[in-house]
Amino acid sequence: MARKQAATKQRQKAPPPGSRSPQDMLADLKGRLREIADLRAANAVLSWDQSTYMPEGGAAARGRQMAVLSRFAHERSVAPDIGRLLDALIPYGETLPQTSDDACLLRVARRDFEKAIKVPGDYVARANVHWSASYQEWTRARPANDFPSMVPYLEKTLDLSREYSEFFAPYAHIADPHIDDADEGMTTASVGNLFGELRRGLVPLVDVICDRPEADDSCLHQEFAKAGQLEFARHAAERMGYDFRRGRLDLTHHPFCTKFSAGDVRITTRVNERDLGDALFSTLHEAGHAMYEQGIDPALAGTPLGHGVSAGVHESQSRLWENIVARSRGFWDYFYPPLQRSFAAQLGGVPLDVFHRAINKVARSLIRTDADEVTYNLHIMLRFDLELRLLEGKLAVKDLAEAWRAAMQADLRIAPADDRDGCLQDVHWYSGTIGGAFHSYTIGNILAAQFYAAALKVHPEIPEQIRRGEFATLHGWLHDNIYWHGARFPPAELVRRATGSALSMQPYLGYLLDKYGALYRLPAG
Amino acid sequence: MARKQAATKQRQKAPPPGSRSPQDMLADLKGRLREIADLRAANAVLSWDQSTYMPEGGAAARGRQMAVLSRFAHERSVAPDIGRLLDALIPYGETLPQTSDDACLLRVARRDFEKAIKVPGDYVARANVHWSASYQEWTRARPANDFPSMVPYLEKTLDLSREYSEFFAPYAHIADPHIDDADEGMTTASVGNLFGELRRGLVPLVDVICDRPEADDSCLHQEFAKAGQLEFARHAAERMGYDFRRGRLDLTHHPFCTKFSAGDVRITTRVNERDLGDALFSTLHEAGHAMYEQGIDPALAGTPLGHGVSAGVHESQSRLWENIVARSRGFWDYFYPPLQRSFAAQLGGVPLDVFHRAINKVARSLIRTDADEVTYNLHIMLRFDLELRLLEGKLAVKDLAEAWRAAMQADLRIAPADDRDGCLQDVHWYSGTIGGAFHSYTIGNILAAQFYAAALKVHPEIPEQIRRGEFATLHGWLHDNIYWHGARFPPAELVRRATGSALSMQPYLGYLLDKYGALYRLPAG
Repeated sequence: MARKQAATKQRQKAPPPGSRSPQDMLADLKGRLREIADLRAANAVLSWDQSTYMPEGGAAARGRQMAVLSRFAHERSVAPDIGRLLDALIPYGETLPQTSDDACLLRVARRDFEKAIKVPGDYVARANVHWSASYQEWTRARPANDFPSMVPYLEKTLDLSREYSEFFAPYAHIADPHIDDADEGMTTASVGNLFGELRRGLVPLVDVICDRPEADDSCLHQEFAKAGQLEFARHAAERMGYDFRRGRLDLTHHPFCTKFSAGDVRITTRVNERDLGDALFSTLHEAGHAMYEQGIDPALAGTPLGHGVSAGVHESQSRLWENIVARSRGFWDYFYPPLQRSFAAQLGGVPLDVFHRAINKVARSLIRTDADEVTYNLHIMLRFDLELRLLEGKLAVKDLAEAWRAAMQADLRIAPADDRDGCLQDVHWYSGTIGGAFHSYTIGNILAAQFYAAALKVHPEIPEQIRRGEFATLHGWLHDNIYWHGARFPPAELVRRATGSALSMQPYLGYLLDKYGALYRLPAG
Repeated sequence: MARKQAATKQRQKAPPPGSRSPQDMLADLKGRLREIADLRAANAVLSWDQSTYMPEGGAAARGRQMAVLSRFAHERSVAPDIGRLLDALIPYGETLPQTSDDACLLRVARRDFEKAIKVPGDYVARANVHWSASYQEWTRARPANDFPSMVPYLEKTLDLSREYSEFFAPYAHIADPHIDDADEGMTTASVGNLFGELRRGLVPLVDVICDRPEADDSCLHQEFAKAGQLEFARHAAERMGYDFRRGRLDLTHHPFCTKFSAGDVRITTRVNERDLGDALFSTLHEAGHAMYEQGIDPALAGTPLGHGVSAGVHESQSRLWENIVARSRGFWDYFYPPLQRSFAAQLGGVPLDVFHRAINKVARSLIRTDADEVTYNLHIMLRFDLELRLLEGKLAVKDLAEAWRAAMQADLRIAPADDRDGCLQDVHWYSGTIGGAFHSYTIGNILAAQFYAAALKVHPEIPEQIRRGEFATLHGWLHDNIYWHGARFPPAELVRRATGSALSMQPYLGYLLDKYGALYRLPAG
């Protein structure tokens, strides 16, 4: 015990922060932040294992182990010592160039700290217990089409979501704190404006496409052996630039991307033997997320700058590869012949044109995750509107299922026969807060087009390269303009630096009109 | 920050341990111990992942993440609060029946705590850094046959091993603290006595066997497809009683067993397509370890009683299944026909007698892990003797390679041509202390025979059941007499309770003489 007491004494004897050099304090701060990052990474390993390989008997203890690590990470992230170091480093931070790594780190660390300390530990604990119980019940209730049993859970989730916002009062709108968590700098008002503009462009497009003959996607719904699907998806992801020496691909119920360190960014997928698109596009989607994380400046590893900057920007990277690249005609000019070789019996007689139209089929459908690129955003906007009405108290949880059906009917002209395909379909509300869950998907779609347009302005040769299965120029532009910066700049500044302008709807609407105008042979304009 | 300070204040306001009820303090203690167990389990997940699925790029950060979790677990295990709770609980402990769970827990928790606080944190950190570097260098040096480059590492390891013993001074022999860590209650003297007795029995047996014609094991060294080997090993492990709903089998370079919770005890194996025995017996060996951990009373989970009691007893459980059961004639009466069906081309024409002699072939060989059941212990005793001479300062590290060759020549009548097959062959000295690394393997062999004999005394029908592929009676006896108790009783007491006597050499020597006497048709006596 003697040595332990000596260690404690030594810590007490350390000079107060004010009298230490800024370099020393900064190193101290970085060490503490790295420790928090390591705890979170350890927890991510436990979570990945839980989804991939854990035997059923491991579930109960795993939940407890993850809760312990979460608690330690949270306790450390709100430690008063971090606040004292940040305060003591203010004068030093003011001497640094605004965009230096250390200045950026101090800005982001302060933002994270100030957010974290506003949320009491007991709230975090209560909320986690509730979400865990709610998720558990949802896994039973969804297949049973039992929305009524979810109502009390969702009411409590709504209360917790409102309570969360109150920690950040005053706010202009009760959803603002949730939206800012996901996408720094965005608000209910700014997202609402964007979505209004998008809706005005999308609704007529969907109407005119849905008046055309439906695309035939039966070629995708034959029997495709699992191993061949995985091998092809793996090959395409690698070719795009996902580095398997610093990652891997496993199977899970829901695809995801997770990062344990800059050298270990893993993705998962699922395989549907009756749907060729499922494994392929979800793998490329997750690879898009993963390439972002793999491409961050190693100098930022283990700091609060060492990850993607926001949910929307992250989603832009997955959507760019999944949709703009991997559903393009040029991509399949290169990849369709090997895909046909892999599945000669199924695709040998299917022309590229037919295949390309099949993977871009637009149709009004019930399930968000199965929706095409065009109607997808209507699913998001519907959820965003419902979230706002719930938070504002204008919609009661018990009326959600009916409100869902009405909104689907209004926006997509179809309505689900039951809640399984309605308001029970997404896990988000049943395992976390209401208010910041969905909007980032559409922000991602919008940004993907804006980034891609900016890359093409500098490198007009990119589409031609894609046609040859070469992705280095596009990957390189994304690496230099997005990936490398991690969370150095706030999202809006990153967008401005990368594209020369603020977030803009025009590239996305232009992309959709061009692509689907050609695919569905729509009249110009 | 306000809420956080409130939480801190609340902790400070808690009454001092002395004024709290014993039940309250015990619950507090158990909570702290469970948290330590959870941290260690989390670290075990990271370690398992490192050995199974981690991409090469993850190595550097993984080492750091594991070090953080180790440090947290260590800091918590030496926290003065634990010492205060243990002290305050002494009067309560004295009121409890000696063998009640709580009395056992207080005894083991105190032993663990008193051991832990004797080892300074800075020693733990220094030693871990050194072992990590030493292991790294060994992975290069062994294939390069470069013992000289390991000498400085091993010298530092020897210094660290001696330094460790000094924390526990006074001791009768400098190896005692290491031996007691692995096998509570054993000493250099007691192990030395046992080994002397074993050597007197073994050396003549090895001599007489090696004068007989060598068994033909060429049937094991054909080409055996990986998938078929794994499937058979998996099937046999499951049949013996390893519960895959609470475990799994993966591939690693070195086979091991690891536990994340009572419901998640995993094993690994390796497959050699030119050696049918490798995957099979290593799987059954690890399954023996795993069944022990799976069978512990769930009431002990997350406490210091919730794991196997000592290295020797643990090894007895793996050896019992691997050797006494799975290399017995009866086992193969049942399993050889399905094995022949799995590998008809290779084994269809090989009689059971020939196969059974092949898997029990005795031969003087260089590599411990490849050694047969009889000569194996000579390899252990050689290492144990060298460890003592190193620790006593009678052998210099630089002379180890030569001393190894001399000892091999004396004990096994063969000597390695190079150090790869000599003193560089085992990872133990190159990744941890010298002194407690090897003796437990032979203790395990001795105990395995003693436990098996005790089970047979109560259930003489066991061999006949094994011949029918039924293991429930043996598994049940081990469960009730060994597994269930976890670390409740010190090893010597567990042995006495299970077998009615102290650790004894006789059952083991009797087993070897009977089995190998029959196999090699030796004259009786």
